[in-house]
Amino acid sequence: MGDKRILCIGLVCLDIINVVDKYPEEDTDTRCLSQRWQRGGNASNSCTVLSLLGAPCAFMGSLAPGPVADFVLDDFRRYKIDTSLLAEHSGCSFPSSIVISNLRNGSRTILHMNSGLFLNLPDVTADDFQKVDLTKYKWIHWEGRNPGEQVKMIKHVEEYNSSVMAEEQITISVEIEKTREELYQLFQYGDVVFVSKDVARHFGYNSAAEALRGFYSQVKKGALLICAWAEMGADGVGPEGTVVHSDAFAPEAIVDTLGAGDTFNASVIFSLSNGKSLQEALTFGCQIAGKKCGIHGYDGIV
Amino acid sequence: MGDKRILCIGLVCLDIINVVDKYPEEDTDTRCLSQRWQRGGNASNSCTVLSLLGAPCAFMGSLAPGPVADFVLDDFRRYKIDTSLLAEHSGCSFPSSIVISNLRNGSRTILHMNSGLFLNLPDVTADDFQKVDLTKYKWIHWEGRNPGEQVKMIKHVEEYNSSVMAEEQITISVEIEKTREELYQLFQYGDVVFVSKDVARHFGYNSAAEALRGFYSQVKKGALLICAWAEMGADGVGPEGTVVHSDAFAPEAIVDTLGAGDTFNASVIFSLSNGKSLQEALTFGCQIAGKKCGIHGYDGIV
Repeated sequence: MGDKRILCIGLVCLDIINVVDKYPEEDTDTRCLSQRWQRGGNASNSCTVLSLLGAPCAFMGSLAPGPVADFVLDDFRRYKIDTSLLAEHSGCSFPSSIVISNLRNGSRTILHMNSGLFLNLPDVTADDFQKVDLTKYKWIHWEGRNPGEQVKMIKHVEEYNSSVMAEEQITISVEIEKTREELYQLFQYGDVVFVSKDVARHFGYNSAAEALRGFYSQVKKGALLICAWAEMGADGVGPEGTVVHSDAFAPEAIVDTLGAGDTFNASVIFSLSNGKSLQEALTFGCQIAGKKCGIHGYDGIV
Repeated sequence: MGDKRILCIGLVCLDIINVVDKYPEEDTDTRCLSQRWQRGGNASNSCTVLSLLGAPCAFMGSLAPGPVADFVLDDFRRYKIDTSLLAEHSGCSFPSSIVISNLRNGSRTILHMNSGLFLNLPDVTADDFQKVDLTKYKWIHWEGRNPGEQVKMIKHVEEYNSSVMAEEQITISVEIEKTREELYQLFQYGDVVFVSKDVARHFGYNSAAEALRGFYSQVKKGALLICAWAEMGADGVGPEGTVVHSDAFAPEAIVDTLGAGDTFNASVIFSLSNGKSLQEALTFGCQIAGKKCGIHGYDGIV
């Protein structure tokens, strides 16, 4: 168990972060205070945080070869994240997002690369997942993207779990972040389900606790359901039915909220995977996510 | 003379062009209709056009090694632009601009990489220029950037010109595009001076012809002064004092005006370097620049 890794499956992309001190008006020229490239993508960011927290981890996703891939691979290496499960797909465009980060109020405006209209990087499929040696992992986390395939992968892990001793079993977590209908089937899978404020709002809930009470009937028996709500902290609920809460830990100054959610998820996974309680995990998640908001990028969250 | 090249000295940068159908509001997520990388920078764009027009050409500028440099070098190669005079500067950031192009109203919002506050790519210096074998070139064009150094380079070429036969002499052109005080000293250098509508407007002129009459006293004796004015076409004036004009050649639909000015400059240089008259060169410049506005990027301007 000690040497087993945490595997995160999802997107890696390039975030080009442009720091401004005023959000640009349309049809003007703005000089950025700074600009930087950052490896992004929810699952990829969570790996960064897991690695910084000291957990051996691996990323599984797709990559289009080219100059951006070289940058991204170098960065994975820098954080000692295992990339042996990365699949290269030539002829695809590498997903990149433009982030306009407003230093004055911490807002982040994101321009996502189109996905769907042109030739895009395929998501990890159940077929790709067959090659994964499950004995290496203690936890597998899916960023909800292509739920049809992701459900097949999860079922494959469930089968594996039913064939091994309890201490060899893999904990399954899923993240439902985007308000896309097809993602909601993921509620019923996973031992730990992360649902976003965005999704909760979309369903008409006005707080994390409200959302948890509303969604909990949909999760698997015995699962934990967790919802972070930015500066309001985060709530979680488990099979005993009590909603537990942690306040947010605001940094002295908010400078960069990009990836704060991914930081929270990773910190909760790290904490739970080390046997901590839901309350402890939520508090730790809020602490690390808060720290992250006070710094640019991730170096320095620990 | 036949095999001699045109050398353009200035900036190469990366333009990341994001096409949207609505300008993004602050702190939201937007999905782009499309996104593309394009090698940019005035002198670099002009090389692309010269090469497409069939003129052997070379680019001289600075490059920060890394993934963007790889992309840019590949692109120079694709257009058969000689990059042997490119200087690599490690430890610098590669200049890139984010362009948000709103399809609905044609607006373009540009986020420029900061230049000045942090460690930035140094411009080409007179020292760098010493190594250039001037016998290889028939024309050298400077994009006004670091005029103190650029004036030294121009003087070096003038000295060279005075030491060789008339048919071996190098034609000198400069572009004054930005409204930066120190650039205006470049008016008095060069056999051909391109001044932008922006600079003309900054000095209170309301048309190209007005600007030419106002600025002509500042240029070197015998020089040509040229000013393009977007959809109003372009004007030029030479030592005989008559302002000549070409109307613009608007494409059926304007899809991409980025680099239209650089296309105009290159086409005028191409035309003049082949012995055409100022009037012919202006008309050719407007034709090719108009064609460029009707297509994305540059492929298809000829």
